[in-house]
Amino acid sequence: MSKKIAGPEIERLVQLLSRMPGLGPRSARKAVLALLKRRNELLIPLTEAMQQAVEKISECPTCGNLDTVSPCSICQDARRDDSLIVVVEEVGDIWALERANIIQARYHVLGGHLSPLDGIGPDKLNIAGLLARVSTGTVKEVLLALNATVEGQSTAHYVSDLLASSGVSVSRLAQGVPMGGELDYLDEGTLAAAFKARRKI
Amino acid sequence: MSKKIAGPEIERLVQLLSRMPGLGPRSARKAVLALLKRRNELLIPLTEAMQQAVEKISECPTCGNLDTVSPCSICQDARRDDSLIVVVEEVGDIWALERANIIQARYHVLGGHLSPLDGIGPDKLNIAGLLARVSTGTVKEVLLALNATVEGQSTAHYVSDLLASSGVSVSRLAQGVPMGGELDYLDEGTLAAAFKARRKI
Repeated sequence: MSKKIAGPEIERLVQLLSRMPGLGPRSARKAVLALLKRRNELLIPLTEAMQQAVEKISECPTCGNLDTVSPCSICQDARRDDSLIVVVEEVGDIWALERANIIQARYHVLGGHLSPLDGIGPDKLNIAGLLARVSTGTVKEVLLALNATVEGQSTAHYVSDLLASSGVSVSRLAQGVPMGGELDYLDEGTLAAAFKARRKI
Repeated sequence: MSKKIAGPEIERLVQLLSRMPGLGPRSARKAVLALLKRRNELLIPLTEAMQQAVEKISECPTCGNLDTVSPCSICQDARRDDSLIVVVEEVGDIWALERANIIQARYHVLGGHLSPLDGIGPDKLNIAGLLARVSTGTVKEVLLALNATVEGQSTAHYVSDLLASSGVSVSRLAQGVPMGGELDYLDEGTLAAAFKARRKI
């Protein structure tokens, strides 16, 4: 808002909300109006939930996951396989993999991907923590479950090189046609990867 | 999240954020991750700003505007013209008109538009408050600055009928080609309205 209208409180709320991903100044104003209009059903519960998050949620010192307990509930889970560490870029990737309910192992959050143009070098990612975990000898395999983007894959190569001398097996997710994928809608890179990695049936 | 991953605190935050306009479950998860990742720069300041909003911002009993003072700063502003009330659907419309900096009058927020299919009849809008303000005798003109949608315009007709016997002049915003508008891109309704309301130059 270029002009002060309803006091600095509303303006500050608009300004902060517009910094969230997916919200611009216009949608932030709409969001603030929705919050103020639905005070008891939305604004107050959301404020309380955020207060709880501020007080209780912290980053796991072992794997970088976000949780209310420290170490996180995944690191504390005795039923999980200690020999496999699944390396991901962000905590959201842990959520996606846990929703899929396919992995009963440990995770490690790098906190992003290498991006020299944005000034994100290896020192900005939690790579040292990963090497320390691998060096304990319990880990047999490191699965680099990074995004299939240029940045994700170059980060995977970098980490993979660092792990080459550690003696652990390093793997990555398979690439190919996604379930339900229609060939006509897939990009050439995916089709080429699926062709190269074709399997006998 | 169909599966519990990082404790009920994060799930509740995702669930509440997904109720905001423009955010679905997926973008709400992204927003929560951004909040937790940028704890000091975003989560804590936003929580505080919302706490301030909960404590300080309320609906103006006179006009329905949202403000930290009651009556709101516009209703309290002695320099504004008491004889003109600009009727809008939502508080966001006041913000838009105030940003344009064209009106030095009073406002009245209806709180929406008539929408029988959604169960929003005249009793759900603050029409009684408008009639009460008009009946004091200070008001000479009521400008129905409602959206140029079917619902906005039928609400304008309804309110206009109620005000017919009050003796005040009832007006609406002009319709026509918007500034910078290219005829080729305008809908037929706008072109027809602009043609009908054409002016001698």
